[in-house]
Amino acid sequence: MRTQVAIIGSGPSGLLLGQLLSLAGIDNVILDRASKDHILGRVRAGVLEEGTVRLMDEARSGARMHAEGLLHDGISLAFDGRDHRIDLFDLTGGKRVTIYGQTELTHDLMDHREQSGMLSINEAANVTPHDFDGNAPRVTYERHGVTHRIDCDFIAGCDGFHGVSRRSVPDKAIRTFEKVYPFGWLGILADVPPVNDELIYANHPRGFALCSMRSMSRSRYYVQCPLDEKIEEWDDRRFWDELRRRLPAHHAERVVTGPSFEKSIAPLRSFVAEPMRFNRLFLVGDAAHIVPPTGAKGLNLAASDVHYLFEGLREHYRDRSNAGLDAYSQRALARAWKAVRFSWWMTTILHRFPGTGAFDQKIQEAELDYLTHSRAAATALAENYVGLPF
Amino acid sequence: MRTQVAIIGSGPSGLLLGQLLSLAGIDNVILDRASKDHILGRVRAGVLEEGTVRLMDEARSGARMHAEGLLHDGISLAFDGRDHRIDLFDLTGGKRVTIYGQTELTHDLMDHREQSGMLSINEAANVTPHDFDGNAPRVTYERHGVTHRIDCDFIAGCDGFHGVSRRSVPDKAIRTFEKVYPFGWLGILADVPPVNDELIYANHPRGFALCSMRSMSRSRYYVQCPLDEKIEEWDDRRFWDELRRRLPAHHAERVVTGPSFEKSIAPLRSFVAEPMRFNRLFLVGDAAHIVPPTGAKGLNLAASDVHYLFEGLREHYRDRSNAGLDAYSQRALARAWKAVRFSWWMTTILHRFPGTGAFDQKIQEAELDYLTHSRAAATALAENYVGLPF
Repeated sequence: MRTQVAIIGSGPSGLLLGQLLSLAGIDNVILDRASKDHILGRVRAGVLEEGTVRLMDEARSGARMHAEGLLHDGISLAFDGRDHRIDLFDLTGGKRVTIYGQTELTHDLMDHREQSGMLSINEAANVTPHDFDGNAPRVTYERHGVTHRIDCDFIAGCDGFHGVSRRSVPDKAIRTFEKVYPFGWLGILADVPPVNDELIYANHPRGFALCSMRSMSRSRYYVQCPLDEKIEEWDDRRFWDELRRRLPAHHAERVVTGPSFEKSIAPLRSFVAEPMRFNRLFLVGDAAHIVPPTGAKGLNLAASDVHYLFEGLREHYRDRSNAGLDAYSQRALARAWKAVRFSWWMTTILHRFPGTGAFDQKIQEAELDYLTHSRAAATALAENYVGLPF
Repeated sequence: MRTQVAIIGSGPSGLLLGQLLSLAGIDNVILDRASKDHILGRVRAGVLEEGTVRLMDEARSGARMHAEGLLHDGISLAFDGRDHRIDLFDLTGGKRVTIYGQTELTHDLMDHREQSGMLSINEAANVTPHDFDGNAPRVTYERHGVTHRIDCDFIAGCDGFHGVSRRSVPDKAIRTFEKVYPFGWLGILADVPPVNDELIYANHPRGFALCSMRSMSRSRYYVQCPLDEKIEEWDDRRFWDELRRRLPAHHAERVVTGPSFEKSIAPLRSFVAEPMRFNRLFLVGDAAHIVPPTGAKGLNLAASDVHYLFEGLREHYRDRSNAGLDAYSQRALARAWKAVRFSWWMTTILHRFPGTGAFDQKIQEAELDYLTHSRAAATALAENYVGLPF
């Protein structure tokens, strides 16, 4: 089989890239080792920047997102027993975020993929990129014990942090930067109305808590926990009690509890691989960089990678120019490091770090105090939260 | 002897407080174990916030400062071989800093002290505050082997980090917060014109460098160095070579060198003592808090303490209200922690920290990049650098 762009990974970045390419008349195949149900079962981010929303529109996949997504004009930073609202809309001259679950967005993109008639191959085993350093790259995979081969012009590695794409690059060609945080997030999903109209990021002596949502009837809540915490030891009652302890009283007393239908502990990590291009292989999204979820940047960063790569590929095929492809790694990394810095900073000011000394704890409190009393500092937070320009 | 306010320490904060009290008709005595010449021989800060300038005017001691001080509208952050100017004036809606050496300011205040006719006792040995927890505090000191006693209403501890005032407070009554940085500043003074019209803060792989000045013919330069560096191993030639290596080429080639007449290595420390009031003893300036010199906040923070304490004392004597004195510790600490945070942050983004990993180094670079490309982030720096309101 032959295609123009072989896309490894059928998560939101692979699907979004595929959809943009298809609309531009560029042939592509998406490969994933997982089934569609498995992919849709992943519970992930839910805060979309305006750039991500625009890209969904450009991919003509934004209708349900606009119909069902919630527009949020602000967030609350809760500490010292009080709310400190960051008015994103006012501080950024009219920008907002859209609350729409990654699962829903992936669902929409899968639906449009089917309508486009382009090929998606799920449950493909041993997907492997080959010869991307030369002029004739190919991707092989196995199904039902038979090895298949796809010849292509380019390979897009949209297969996440643990995917095969980055691992196929020789160690000496890649430089990695990593930070592992000394705590995790214990998160639940429950079909209860969210405690607040907007997200609450709480810094409490017992640890960080986040009140997020997927809709006005589905809540997503997190509490910071030690990395060695055992999920079996957290029944719903214990979770709700702990969440309420970390919120200001006026929120705590209004938390609507109910049975959780998803509960998991996620570690927090910052990771960047440089460069993001290896001749005819391009890394996209989590395959190249991971951020802790505190700043809600992971999916949005994948979207800007997709944007840069799509522009480069379109220029290549339509304008016979490689300028965009040649600039891809630098453009994507420049934006990625900004989001990596922001996510690291949000994580640093909002969590309690084990072993932090009295001075550093006071500095954290002074930073939150400054942030919520200086328009300049609040604007710096807001412009990052709604998303720096692509 | 009896006075209303006994001031321990004849540096700028003690002198400034004394001058304000004298003008308000409040009797005061200043005690210092050092001679005036010794105090004037200390080489210290030289960047004054507008609030500090206003306080010098309020103390009717600002004439020479206005005549000889240099008004600076910006600073340069130098990294990646380039200047990145922070336009303080534009970003803060018209605020500036005044470059005027602490030595000169102290000199002016000493001159006005003499004119005021109020008593200053220098070379006083074993200055000791007593009974400040009760209603009849006193300060004792020795001169020529004779012990003297000053009865007073209040004691102002303006005697710096190593002074007796804070050490007189029982350990259990005080909480301290401290951070010692893993490097020092090697600084020189030389009578050569400064390399640039404005200050240059340089972050270079070899370490931080600062190009400051006292006037257009006297330069103050610093380079970051290990804490165990030996001053004897730094002749002028080595210093100038090292300074030039850390500056962008267009600055390096314009450095005018000459013999230094002061050369020293200073450690960098953040320190805060809480509270700042112990009944009738008030800690002021460095006696209560130390900041690394990176943000030029030490003297300015002492000035805001003086302002709060003077207001409180004037209210006490004039209006028979203790509200200002009762609020002193909280007001002074609230502002101090903001400056402590800012000084810690400036130090963190501008120095090379031994043992920093690749990820943290990239975060520092991303922060400098963001700071110099975001108006909001640059404004946050600028509003702190020119000084948050008293």
